[in-house]
Amino acid sequence: MTWRIPDDDNRQRYVCEACGEIFYENPKIIAGCVPIWGDQVLLCKRAIEPRYGWWTLPAGFMENGETTMEAAARETLEEASTQVEILDLFAVFNLPQINQVYMMFQAVLPTLEFSPGSESLECMLYHEQEIPWSELAFPTITHTLEYFFSDRKKNDFGLHFGDIVREGQQAVLIPHRGGRADAR
Amino acid sequence: MTWRIPDDDNRQRYVCEACGEIFYENPKIIAGCVPIWGDQVLLCKRAIEPRYGWWTLPAGFMENGETTMEAAARETLEEASTQVEILDLFAVFNLPQINQVYMMFQAVLPTLEFSPGSESLECMLYHEQEIPWSELAFPTITHTLEYFFSDRKKNDFGLHFGDIVREGQQAVLIPHRGGRADAR
Repeated sequence: MTWRIPDDDNRQRYVCEACGEIFYENPKIIAGCVPIWGDQVLLCKRAIEPRYGWWTLPAGFMENGETTMEAAARETLEEASTQVEILDLFAVFNLPQINQVYMMFQAVLPTLEFSPGSESLECMLYHEQEIPWSELAFPTITHTLEYFFSDRKKNDFGLHFGDIVREGQQAVLIPHRGGRADAR
Repeated sequence: MTWRIPDDDNRQRYVCEACGEIFYENPKIIAGCVPIWGDQVLLCKRAIEPRYGWWTLPAGFMENGETTMEAAARETLEEASTQVEILDLFAVFNLPQINQVYMMFQAVLPTLEFSPGSESLECMLYHEQEIPWSELAFPTITHTLEYFFSDRKKNDFGLHFGDIVREGQQAVLIPHRGGRADAR
């Protein structure tokens, strides 16, 4: 395996010199959701690194063969053992420094039957005023929840789109204009 | 390089047995745009396979280290030698059978200075009634242009979100609800 610029390309890639296969590494999609039960949302306490023991929304790497909605539902099933109904695409974040794009959906819990999967220590419903803001695992989770509660107050849910970049110890959100009302 | 389920995983991956490195293959993002000049849009005739000689909107694989907007602008620079201003996220398509997610933006051409890059045979501005619908390279391009002209007629641009799946010879669009008005 060597790290070089293949013929007809302009970037370095992993190339297997034995078989000639090129392994392209491109940004990965993290698909997740805000699972809603009445005026509460479901959070999961992480049982894995990074951020073991911190709270998160169900989310994870999208896999080949699935749609972003299916990935968000599968991650929720894996982390909280419940089959949510995925609704609108709600927040999209570029994280160029770590080669990730988050796609977060609104979702509804069909029942109160949920329980921690193997990647979670605990799953719990939270009202807005109970959210453990200082114990959230990632800035993407914080911003998704902030947008969610802010939109809910106005009863006007948007698509939020922005970049999250790390500047020193700080993660800074650079918001862009999101999409406008669905005109299907 | 073997194709097996690594420890602590539940899917097959490429694993280098010499160094232990796991090569995850996940869906890739195709970022692109609808470059607008007045009431015309810019199309490029492909100089590369697949679909050599067919017309497309500027779009291509997002690379590590960039945002989706930067990727869309870079692809336009590479294919049409012009630096567009990227505006709203406009259409998101899941293509689960080929492990791709398209993210298409509206964009404006700053000048009439554009010319085919190495991946294009030709670049041309088209009015709606001149679009070569039967010579468009991919269903994603057709649907993006259809949404664009339909929204423009209503002067109400939305975020369009859907899956495109192949059923026999047909590519079928399954639309989902997009995001609603940006409530930033």
